Amino acid sequence: MSMAKANPRRLTILGSTGSIGVNTLDVIRQLGGSDRYEIMAITGQANIRLLAEQAKACRAQLAVTADPSLYNALKDALAGSGIAVAAGESGLQEAAEAEADWVMAAIAGTAGLAPTLAAARRGADIALANKECLVSAGALFMETIDRAGGRLLPVDSEHSAIFQCLTGDHRAALERIVLTASGGPFRTFSRAEMADVTVETARSHPNWSMGLKVSIGSASMFNKALEMIEAKHLFHLRPDQVEVIIHPQSIVHSMVGYSDGSVMAQLGVPDMRTAIAYALTYPERGQLDVERLDFTKLARLDFEAPDESRFPALRLARTALERGGLQAAVLNAAEETAFHAFVEGRIGFLSMAEIVEEVMDALQTFENTQGLDAVLAADAQARRQARVIIEKAAAA
Amino acid sequence: MSMAKANPRRLTILGSTGSIGVNTLDVIRQLGGSDRYEIMAITGQANIRLLAEQAKACRAQLAVTADPSLYNALKDALAGSGIAVAAGESGLQEAAEAEADWVMAAIAGTAGLAPTLAAARRGADIALANKECLVSAGALFMETIDRAGGRLLPVDSEHSAIFQCLTGDHRAALERIVLTASGGPFRTFSRAEMADVTVETARSHPNWSMGLKVSIGSASMFNKALEMIEAKHLFHLRPDQVEVIIHPQSIVHSMVGYSDGSVMAQLGVPDMRTAIAYALTYPERGQLDVERLDFTKLARLDFEAPDESRFPALRLARTALERGGLQAAVLNAAEETAFHAFVEGRIGFLSMAEIVEEVMDALQTFENTQGLDAVLAADAQARRQARVIIEKAAAA
Repeated sequence: MSMAKANPRRLTILGSTGSIGVNTLDVIRQLGGSDRYEIMAITGQANIRLLAEQAKACRAQLAVTADPSLYNALKDALAGSGIAVAAGESGLQEAAEAEADWVMAAIAGTAGLAPTLAAARRGADIALANKECLVSAGALFMETIDRAGGRLLPVDSEHSAIFQCLTGDHRAALERIVLTASGGPFRTFSRAEMADVTVETARSHPNWSMGLKVSIGSASMFNKALEMIEAKHLFHLRPDQVEVIIHPQSIVHSMVGYSDGSVMAQLGVPDMRTAIAYALTYPERGQLDVERLDFTKLARLDFEAPDESRFPALRLARTALERGGLQAAVLNAAEETAFHAFVEGRIGFLSMAEIVEEVMDALQTFENTQGLDAVLAADAQARRQARVIIEKAAAA
Repeated sequence: MSMAKANPRRLTILGSTGSIGVNTLDVIRQLGGSDRYEIMAITGQANIRLLAEQAKACRAQLAVTADPSLYNALKDALAGSGIAVAAGESGLQEAAEAEADWVMAAIAGTAGLAPTLAAARRGADIALANKECLVSAGALFMETIDRAGGRLLPVDSEHSAIFQCLTGDHRAALERIVLTASGGPFRTFSRAEMADVTVETARSHPNWSMGLKVSIGSASMFNKALEMIEAKHLFHLRPDQVEVIIHPQSIVHSMVGYSDGSVMAQLGVPDMRTAIAYALTYPERGQLDVERLDFTKLARLDFEAPDESRFPALRLARTALERGGLQAAVLNAAEETAFHAFVEGRIGFLSMAEIVEEVMDALQTFENTQGLDAVLAADAQARRQARVIIEKAAAA
């Protein structure tokens, strides 16, 4: 007797060549590969060789490079494979609109906004690794998800932890969330020491291996600031329900405190595949070949209060949450601009937060606050404002 | 417009004058008292004054003392209150059979077996604080619960933690449970140092305030051994799925490891009211006035592997789980007998485990292994055997 094979789940990966994308493909392979999943589309940017390899290995129906000038290179690399090829913004749109049931949104930065929103509008489940969708366009994005009826599945290890702690529990009893933060490489630095740090020392994260933007964001704790804003939208929280605690070992990924005094925590070896897998298998769990926590080797977990005078990013996130409107979009855009200036050696490490604060204070009201255009306009204005401040500082 | 009041939930507390009972009444009061709950019966033993006070305060319909010689004292104390009074085994049976929807089973020791089984047979939800039901009569008790259709709600902080970690999650993905143990007052003692400890030092638990039996059991880790056996039955585990880790702060109450590498943990200030409340409100959570965990003050959580040469109780629990049959009932009865001999100063601290091991090795087969009578017979035989060994040692 033969059993009919169940319909495979249709997946799309927006941003398949970055670390989230690579890990997502590994998780898909571990959880059954093409027996269980059908890859509708994958997208990348400059790494055409990896993108083409991935497309062939996972038998994607469509491969897209975000860079229109690389269309021919991708076309050549996939010649004879039967895999459709597209490029540029329209290509990303095509990928987002492919009939996938589940879309991994892992295109970093503002560039990820439009395709993720397009996928959400179709009612697909969105595994969310892009921060901007919630930080800059939180209200809009949550509305889009709600209206279309898809599920929003967080992929950040912190938000996945909270999501796991909430599963099967009652939202009415939620009292607070506790986001854990490693504290980054400058956890024990004084402000004076932080003033002089270089990009190289700032990028050396103690526990996770990550891209440059996230590494620097972890050192300045702007990464945690963005996560606070994400959490607010994802879990419908008031600003005072969002706590941050320094936990240098990055084993407790985050926690939820309930009205009966109980705190639920999700722990694991730092490996983003667990969070990715949970977003794929939710509400079930898959069998994953990742390292298991060995508590006899773990020895200890430390916790300490974050110092907001050394890490003003946390204070700024709280300000953005309290002010509401487009302040979070402004924070995000100003931070991204300041980050580039720091990486280029034009400003010091501590100037990043100072610039963000100045831009936030300057841009508290906008004529138009509704829809994606308003978000993008605020984003652009914050970047311009940040650049003006950076130029002035450089000229002084 | 007036709203009809919902029918109150009918509760019975077997063992209301012990620490679990006292805390249960506090939780009931905090969660709405007589507006939401109707107390069908409460039972106690020698503390007639407290029992009568409780019965009046919670407006119980029936108050029972387990000691038949105190019937008149209780009758007098409740004269004119309209509260029915009973005593002895038949009184406990009456309490267990009162039409409660939810029964807190907090009568310690083998004495709790019969009334708890009687309540389970009625199909009531059982909030289980008595260890013997699962340790000595695990298979029988689980069968009774399953057949009658009530829910089994663990009250031990460790098992409540695991229960909370499993809620809403998929049993198929459960890989292991990690029971935490404080390590007790002798965590850092050598075997030589442990040989000479007194009852007074052994009862001084670092984190929880508990009765003498549990305090000594925490020092010898026999308490954790019993919890391993309880967990096996409660969560249908193989022996190799039950891990124990020393965690001196008693903040992480226990954990569950899943097949995707994720570990869910339940944390809280050591306060049994949270676990009691969860057993009462499950699957929801109530609003409880207990101290909240403050991670900025917590500073650190330590973990270390248990040393089974200093704490052979854990090894003996594993042996009992692997041998199956009535070995756990034998372990429990031998341990209780050895505990009394230690408290009376007749044997040393380390002799407790030696006696338990000798009795377990001697009593591996029984003619009858089914039903409560078989459990009670094995229990009695193990106690006799333990006493023989203790007499011999005392005579030598």
